[in-house]
Amino acid sequence: MSSATLAVRRDRALGAGAPLFYDAPLHIVRGEGVYVYDADGRRYVDMYNNVPCVGHANPDVVEAMARQQATLNVHSRYLHEGIVAFAERLAGLHGPTIESVIFSCSGTEANEVALRMARLATGKTGIVCTNATYHGNSEAVAKLNRIGVGRNAAGDVCAIPFPEMLRPLVPGASEADLTEAYLDRLREAIATLEKDGAGFAGLIVCSILANEGLPDIPRGFMPRAAEIVRAAGGVVIADEVQAGYCRTGRWWGYDVTGFTPDIVVTGKPMGNGLPLAATAASRALVEGFRSATRYFNTFASSPLQAAVGMAVVDVIERDGLAENVAKVGAFLKSALSQRKGRFASVADVRGHGLFIGVEIAKTDAARTPDMDKAVEVINRLKDRGFLTSNAGAFKNVVKIRPPLVFAQRDAEEFLGVFDATMAELDG
Amino acid sequence: MSSATLAVRRDRALGAGAPLFYDAPLHIVRGEGVYVYDADGRRYVDMYNNVPCVGHANPDVVEAMARQQATLNVHSRYLHEGIVAFAERLAGLHGPTIESVIFSCSGTEANEVALRMARLATGKTGIVCTNATYHGNSEAVAKLNRIGVGRNAAGDVCAIPFPEMLRPLVPGASEADLTEAYLDRLREAIATLEKDGAGFAGLIVCSILANEGLPDIPRGFMPRAAEIVRAAGGVVIADEVQAGYCRTGRWWGYDVTGFTPDIVVTGKPMGNGLPLAATAASRALVEGFRSATRYFNTFASSPLQAAVGMAVVDVIERDGLAENVAKVGAFLKSALSQRKGRFASVADVRGHGLFIGVEIAKTDAARTPDMDKAVEVINRLKDRGFLTSNAGAFKNVVKIRPPLVFAQRDAEEFLGVFDATMAELDG
Repeated sequence: MSSATLAVRRDRALGAGAPLFYDAPLHIVRGEGVYVYDADGRRYVDMYNNVPCVGHANPDVVEAMARQQATLNVHSRYLHEGIVAFAERLAGLHGPTIESVIFSCSGTEANEVALRMARLATGKTGIVCTNATYHGNSEAVAKLNRIGVGRNAAGDVCAIPFPEMLRPLVPGASEADLTEAYLDRLREAIATLEKDGAGFAGLIVCSILANEGLPDIPRGFMPRAAEIVRAAGGVVIADEVQAGYCRTGRWWGYDVTGFTPDIVVTGKPMGNGLPLAATAASRALVEGFRSATRYFNTFASSPLQAAVGMAVVDVIERDGLAENVAKVGAFLKSALSQRKGRFASVADVRGHGLFIGVEIAKTDAARTPDMDKAVEVINRLKDRGFLTSNAGAFKNVVKIRPPLVFAQRDAEEFLGVFDATMAELDG
Repeated sequence: MSSATLAVRRDRALGAGAPLFYDAPLHIVRGEGVYVYDADGRRYVDMYNNVPCVGHANPDVVEAMARQQATLNVHSRYLHEGIVAFAERLAGLHGPTIESVIFSCSGTEANEVALRMARLATGKTGIVCTNATYHGNSEAVAKLNRIGVGRNAAGDVCAIPFPEMLRPLVPGASEADLTEAYLDRLREAIATLEKDGAGFAGLIVCSILANEGLPDIPRGFMPRAAEIVRAAGGVVIADEVQAGYCRTGRWWGYDVTGFTPDIVVTGKPMGNGLPLAATAASRALVEGFRSATRYFNTFASSPLQAAVGMAVVDVIERDGLAENVAKVGAFLKSALSQRKGRFASVADVRGHGLFIGVEIAKTDAARTPDMDKAVEVINRLKDRGFLTSNAGAFKNVVKIRPPLVFAQRDAEEFLGVFDATMAELDG
């Protein structure tokens, strides 16, 4: 079947508007490790997908999945050792304040749980988020998505400008002053929510501000923000759906930006493609939520989720993937940073571990974000066999986020192709 | 590990309050077909679980799952034939007005999509539901759950009394008059929403009123209700999460209660345990939703969901499971109905196909619902090796809902155990 025919069928079966990447969409049929193959047998290096974190078609995951599905896969209102052991394992990957876990099937569901948990624990409804974030697709969670600075109409969400060094809130300020300036916006948001009746329930933030384009954050902002939130009676929710699971070279994004959350949300990489997400917190927070809601999720906390989730953690630890991410990520970021001088449209290179953003901008004094050129870059990289995407508050950041098994040789190969692409576009 | 030790670990790892069935919870380790086995090797006949619809550990599903996970499992922003073919197959199981599908990971997510689709299509927000329903666990969907008759505080939901013959709205009325009486409550709910500013977006209803306890519905209510909804400019959402997939002996619950929905929500049995759900509608409705929301769901519309979902439909059709359900279900319902005269606390036997409710009531004139005795029944049935649960608006209905592969001999075995149990309790 031709891609064109398939696209026509897809428009009818899924409805036109179901999102597709690239000007000429890819028709992928097979994956292995960091590679995917299209219907014509052409190989692509996957530098986008964080879900298949231990590699496409990872055999350990396939085996765990098949074995458990052939043994038992049932809901969680029976005792099952696998799910208990996996919850213990997951909680054990955090500090001692994270004790208990509520499993669900998507980051959206896990963020729903986190928001309700924060609201139940505080008796308040007001949530502070950042202004260009994305936390999921349900009605309650979508209220947080890219709402711009300020309070929403319902009065239960207030967004602050995300902290960053590149386009700072106060141009020319010292890093310490900039930290304070951003913290002042947090204090104001809390005061707004308290004043307007919703009250302040907590802050939700991606630990590395992934959807904002991985900005460098003024040192001190995250830990100080967490202190301010707690002093105001709120809880700190770390959305680790993108930041966690060794993506940064450490287990959690909050290890990198230096704060301790009260509630941690995880998702995408947990099941290497099996729908699996979790909301983890202190036992008191989890039990407060459970007793108020009697939460039950048919497909979640299943033996299948547990077996696959455990296999993913096993592979990450056995194969030293955090170390691989730290090493290859540092090499790639350093090498890309050298391109800042070489290619005029590369305005900034940022990120942590194997999550790197290359900011594409015009060459004017303000370094105006150049989304069109970023889109051109990712399409040409794709044509040369490397899959990335564009992201960030201005959609002008080339987003590099390969499976954790991405190797040094893949990085080296990519750099050659990146140089060729930028040389064409910067010419 | 003892069940007691596991229960203590579970309370910490998942938080006390994570729901468990039965006074002495079951510790299940293995399943096969309609049977599950506990840690001591004891066999139970599963008469509760509709998720493993083609049987626990079904080998065709295991093979499809393992093969696809070993080949490719990635998000839906690439072209993939499997997901298109599965969407076409699923839409094809409905009438011609259902053309396009939005996949998600849970019934909750699929109902979120349905509600937003109805609201976007109509430009109104008011939803009518029944008064003792359950549609999911997110904030937006949970607004519909068991709210009692009337409008909610937010003004965007209005519940009507669910139609039933057993405890009718107008005692002594003819069936035709009773239909009208219930329809009047629907008309009033629509008028309330229109008057109060929310406007009327649509009706959401489980096609067989599963959570209400599978009441016999006054003939004509469902088709007439659908007419009234459409005449008022609303859309009809059929929640087929429990009712669909041959549960009733026909593919869809709405085939049994006789109406045509505009939007169909499916979930539980679709993936035999793999998280998989769908919202299906006309192409216009789906595209209206897509263009307004740019909906994307990381784990949904994946090659894995498609391969497993297709395998489940294949097995249902190849093995004639609709016919099995119709035949065994009719036998079991008929046999149980004969127990109405024999056991005083059996007040009613209702249902469709292999979804049967046995209403347990006191022997007073009003047949007061007896939840305590229903709980006692299900615990004793469990001790005798048969898994059921209690459900319904008054939690007094023994809920019988086995995998679709439940056989005549399983039904016969159950009847002996049911008789022994009721003889003890009715003594």
